[in-house]
Amino acid sequence: MSHLGARISHIAPGRIHIELPGRPEVTQQHGYVHGGAVSAIADTAGGYAAYTLFPEDTEVLTVEYKINLLAPAIGDHVEAVGTVLKSGRTLTVCQLEVFGVQAGERKLVANGQQTLIRVNRSER
Amino acid sequence: MSHLGARISHIAPGRIHIELPGRPEVTQQHGYVHGGAVSAIADTAGGYAAYTLFPEDTEVLTVEYKINLLAPAIGDHVEAVGTVLKSGRTLTVCQLEVFGVQAGERKLVANGQQTLIRVNRSER
Amino acid sequence: MSHLGARISHIAPGRIHIELPGRPEVTQQHGYVHGGAVSAIADTAGGYAAYTLFPEDTEVLTVEYKINLLAPAIGDHVEAVGTVLKSGRTLTVCQLEVFGVQAGERKLVANGQQTLIRVNRSER
Amino acid sequence: MSHLGARISHIAPGRIHIELPGRPEVTQQHGYVHGGAVSAIADTAGGYAAYTLFPEDTEVLTVEYKINLLAPAIGDHVEAVGTVLKSGRTLTVCQLEVFGVQAGERKLVANGQQTLIRVNRSER
Repeated sequence: MSHLGARISHIAPGRIHIELPGRPEVTQQHGYVHGGAVSAIADTAGGYAAYTLFPEDTEVLTVEYKINLLAPAIGDHVEAVGTVLKSGRTLTVCQLEVFGVQAGERKLVANGQQTLIRVNRSER
Repeated sequence: MSHLGARISHIAPGRIHIELPGRPEVTQQHGYVHGGAVSAIADTAGGYAAYTLFPEDTEVLTVEYKINLLAPAIGDHVEAVGTVLKSGRTLTVCQLEVFGVQAGERKLVANGQQTLIRVNRSER
Repeated sequence: MSHLGARISHIAPGRIHIELPGRPEVTQQHGYVHGGAVSAIADTAGGYAAYTLFPEDTEVLTVEYKINLLAPAIGDHVEAVGTVLKSGRTLTVCQLEVFGVQAGERKLVANGQQTLIRVNRSER
Repeated sequence: MSHLGARISHIAPGRIHIELPGRPEVTQQHGYVHGGAVSAIADTAGGYAAYTLFPEDTEVLTVEYKINLLAPAIGDHVEAVGTVLKSGRTLTVCQLEVFGVQAGERKLVANGQQTLIRVNRSER
């Protein structure tokens, strides 16, 4: 994530926002953020959101996710929001949203859903 | 849907609710509504929600959907809510939610995301 | 499944085939099998395929699945094939395929992917 | 993709292989390729696979994909394979597979499914 220039901009129990500036390394020829980067920050936001509800000495792994790329990710930056829908003992399910933010206006550019698994460090 | 006993309980632009009573035909041995019926009403709710925003002489087809079954669908009835996230010229993307409703309390039992395509009747 | 008229037609370790005759109860106005029934037998085929690799005293639950409806499910019957891609201690991932079969010819009408969880009966 | 160090290693009608060397920029602390990079090359392989079957003056856009991360992507390199399952006039559906390759042995580390749309350049 640091390789892409992303940073956590908001953190709450079950909810994480990640911001990615529209830097040249992550933009395509048309000036918008590449779908791969959009998906990567969405996946990461969901992972951290799940992790906010985990006990100590655990880790989180993405089992799977599905994402719809709704519109080109244009903006000064893109913001991914991960929100826990269900937190179980073993599995957590998150909603993933990515917004393009330009001049303060937010537009939904991707929407997804993700399943994660909790792993106890002692089991690794 | 009528085969399952389902009926539309709410309709608004871009949003449809479908109710399915917990009848014996759709319940499993443990008394909750079968995952197949849960998915079917979720898919249908999204399809109708997309259709509320379509012009005349068009039809809607499900391209794909993904659904997480979060909890057993216990209740007097289950309610599926389809909500349009993005309505494009060709493709529409919907959020799918299914709730188990018992004694007035709603619990999220499934959550999904769906892509649909608009087909002009003249093209069929 | 018996409510829909489906039956297991092939069973092998990590692989299950389920056949669904094109009966009036599961067909739409255009004469092909309803998407809800297609998804339901795909989900069921994957669940049984996972279960073939499980130890005794365990159960299988669908965590989530994603399915693309590729073509109308026309045919004398439809056949769902569930194949285990990865069988882990907790989670199993299956590929789901549904074919329309007419006069011996098979056509892929739906394709999906599914995550399942193993539950020990003693934990319920 | 060039930013990640990826390159096309095989091309055929409806099928593309992309190789990504296990360079430090795309690996995690445990030495395996990051899930975001795995998903990105899978998405790209499917996009190019769809594109091999398109007429001139068209472009391809990813509508959505779903991916299961089955195992850590360890290896000298990872290889993504995109295969067209259905090529329609508007929509294409691809299967996505990612393998970790070490000392010539291939292990499936991710499996997915993707929907793409064909866009005529003149319509943009």
